[in-house]
Amino acid sequence: MSAADAPWRLSIAELVPLIRDGALSPVDLLDAYLERIGALDGALHSFVHLNAHARAAAEAAQAEIAAGRWRGPLHGVPIGVKDNHLTADMPTTAGAPGEAFPLRDATAVARLRAAGAVLIGKTRMHQFAWGMETPPTANPRDLSRVPGGSSGGSGAAVAAGLCAAALGSDTGGSIRIPASLCGCVGLKPTFGLIGRGGIVPHSWSLDHAGPLAASVADAALLTEAMAGPDPDDPGCAGLAAPGLAAAAAPGASVAGLRVGVCHRHFFEGLTPAVERAADAALAALVAAGARIVEFDAPELSVGLGAIFAIELASSTAWHDRRLREGRVAGFEPDVRLLVEMGRLVSGADYLQAERYRRRLGEVFAARFADVDVVAGPTLPLTAWRMGERSVDIGGRSESVLAVSWRLTYPWNLLGLPALSLPCGVDGDGLPIGFQIAGPAFGEAAVLRAGAALEAALGGPMARG
Amino acid sequence: MSAADAPWRLSIAELVPLIRDGALSPVDLLDAYLERIGALDGALHSFVHLNAHARAAAEAAQAEIAAGRWRGPLHGVPIGVKDNHLTADMPTTAGAPGEAFPLRDATAVARLRAAGAVLIGKTRMHQFAWGMETPPTANPRDLSRVPGGSSGGSGAAVAAGLCAAALGSDTGGSIRIPASLCGCVGLKPTFGLIGRGGIVPHSWSLDHAGPLAASVADAALLTEAMAGPDPDDPGCAGLAAPGLAAAAAPGASVAGLRVGVCHRHFFEGLTPAVERAADAALAALVAAGARIVEFDAPELSVGLGAIFAIELASSTAWHDRRLREGRVAGFEPDVRLLVEMGRLVSGADYLQAERYRRRLGEVFAARFADVDVVAGPTLPLTAWRMGERSVDIGGRSESVLAVSWRLTYPWNLLGLPALSLPCGVDGDGLPIGFQIAGPAFGEAAVLRAGAALEAALGGPMARG
Repeated sequence: MSAADAPWRLSIAELVPLIRDGALSPVDLLDAYLERIGALDGALHSFVHLNAHARAAAEAAQAEIAAGRWRGPLHGVPIGVKDNHLTADMPTTAGAPGEAFPLRDATAVARLRAAGAVLIGKTRMHQFAWGMETPPTANPRDLSRVPGGSSGGSGAAVAAGLCAAALGSDTGGSIRIPASLCGCVGLKPTFGLIGRGGIVPHSWSLDHAGPLAASVADAALLTEAMAGPDPDDPGCAGLAAPGLAAAAAPGASVAGLRVGVCHRHFFEGLTPAVERAADAALAALVAAGARIVEFDAPELSVGLGAIFAIELASSTAWHDRRLREGRVAGFEPDVRLLVEMGRLVSGADYLQAERYRRRLGEVFAARFADVDVVAGPTLPLTAWRMGERSVDIGGRSESVLAVSWRLTYPWNLLGLPALSLPCGVDGDGLPIGFQIAGPAFGEAAVLRAGAALEAALGGPMARG
Repeated sequence: MSAADAPWRLSIAELVPLIRDGALSPVDLLDAYLERIGALDGALHSFVHLNAHARAAAEAAQAEIAAGRWRGPLHGVPIGVKDNHLTADMPTTAGAPGEAFPLRDATAVARLRAAGAVLIGKTRMHQFAWGMETPPTANPRDLSRVPGGSSGGSGAAVAAGLCAAALGSDTGGSIRIPASLCGCVGLKPTFGLIGRGGIVPHSWSLDHAGPLAASVADAALLTEAMAGPDPDDPGCAGLAAPGLAAAAAPGASVAGLRVGVCHRHFFEGLTPAVERAADAALAALVAAGARIVEFDAPELSVGLGAIFAIELASSTAWHDRRLREGRVAGFEPDVRLLVEMGRLVSGADYLQAERYRRRLGEVFAARFADVDVVAGPTLPLTAWRMGERSVDIGGRSESVLAVSWRLTYPWNLLGLPALSLPCGVDGDGLPIGFQIAGPAFGEAAVLRAGAALEAALGGPMARG
């Protein structure tokens, strides 16, 4: 099959020369995705809104490129946008259809638009980003299973080849969880690297923006495009991120890389398939020249309560006025429960959680003196069936909320970069994710390790 | 009366040449203070503990100076230490006699000791720094009145001439309030300038350490001595503060200084005597060459709730274990009420308060582009009678807790430097305080303005 027959199979890195040199027009590329959306999204439900202005944007990109004004690797590339990112030309609901957020571009969206990206539509999310299932979106690998959340629409759309890449947000794992369960790549960058201005908040100090993409290189490219100052986000570091795409380019080497492995917490309570795949991924890194450095962090044992307290309190603070005014009709029952539960977190609880967070930060700052990255599985399991509220791992029942962010949340508490990429499938053919984290603003090492592992495992997971 | 007759009347700046040149021995100076303590502190109750090792320290200082090894302006100078600062040679109780805190020096205490200061004793404080009265300490200007709090013992001891200066801590006004009510000088420096390692916490993000002193120059000298890195305080900026003593030296000029005056909030609800004295202080600054710049900050109207929420939640978080274990017998009833009230502040409330704090910080960062300092009264009133729970100002009743920190707390929320110095007395001869605040790490301008005003008003207030 040629690229012209199925350009939706290609990564952005593969699309770039075709678009830049006129071999593939942005309009044809858009049409290819729209055709797949038409064919598949009736069952997947990954988009909540398609952009009526996308064709005009693709035509404008096509004309610009034809006139010799190619803007760069995102020019003419269709990107999906998680529905908590404000957009000037599409409504934003954050998963609550009754909401009417302002029609303007979030900072990250504006950066992509300026880079020439075509915003193809808004992807479905778990309401207010407070959940890990994203109903009614289905997992493209098995329609009876969840895509994960909260950026479930982005994960499903990217894995199914309905757009070149998509934007997500990640408060406890909401980019990496759907990436892992659907079988694509997701990057939660360092806190403050990508501004969150114009993204509906869930938990100010934990929310991160980042990409879901078909390959590690594509995730790097999008991150580099979105990083930078954001006057609308007081948490934004204001740093650009040059060199990320280069770090993830073909031939990335991990020779001498020190890969930290903490069996406590990050390898506990896994399904056998996940454990095997993660061990194989570590072996592949070692075969590629990396060195495993075992370490321990006993402090991790009690962290889930800390992020839960911070997230509950923050979310409730943001929904405060709505709650006081009794405007709760628009909440899904599960989200309403969490938002109302948040009232029970005391200020003292919140402060204890923040104190734990600081201590954990000191622990990992010390660990990162000895290792370049920390690696392990992204989730303890593969996609569960829709409607399941708890899962069973090794005879132990666990809520899907807890099991899905158990391995991802530490990097939100710490604000450190964490990448998820596919590292195989289980016996049912369901994708397994591998997580690589790094020190603050250490995206380059994380992406380099991810790109090397991806290559060692045979290249990006096929889409569709 | 010669200096040798009553050295306790002198400021540190005045003592320096006498001690350095051998005209006054540290032992004689210590004895002069101990004699006054013996004569007066039975009624004042400003000290909870006198240092059994003070004489040895004074003798060592005397020997060192006699041998030509004068360490600097604090060498041989007796200093009182608020009882929430850990000390290696004295017990620490934080106002709760049942407590047994570790016997080691707080960072600020260690710095003073290294500078050669003689630690004369521990000064009484409102229990756990959660109150503005410091029972049973009396105001040296009128024994039937409160000295203010929570550093009430330090304020009373300095104003009565029982030590050369004293350490305090200030969470909502606890240095400036006793300084204002007793008639001495108090400086709450910028958050992070003086490390708080080894000071019993009250509210992590609001607590500041700083001096109470007989003159603005002495406050500058002590601040300069205590500033610097502190590995035991994550909030410490690690900056030294050279030049503060020079900024407050005789001849300090305010020519061209832009003095911000915000009548809203900072001049509302004052007694007539305080309003007159504050207006006169402003006029004195203008006469000395300063320029008044009026500004408004409507956001201040709602700030008391914000600091109260933060302080309640933080204090309760710190006392959490004690509360859970039911160890409440050691609490004074008023403190127990506040600590238990803190449980009712939700995490969402806490976060709303922190969000307000950030907005207020942005407002004042903008204001400080146009002014060098902000000035007004320290308190709306003078010392109230012991046992009073509320006061009446202009026919309006107000709790003593609210009235005492109403004008001081904004500088704690913002972490900005704020000085209180005497600016006159009311009809009963009770001292009135004037407050000068500045931008972050703008202590030099604040101290220069304070020193110039002090000189314009006839020099430091007499002690005793």
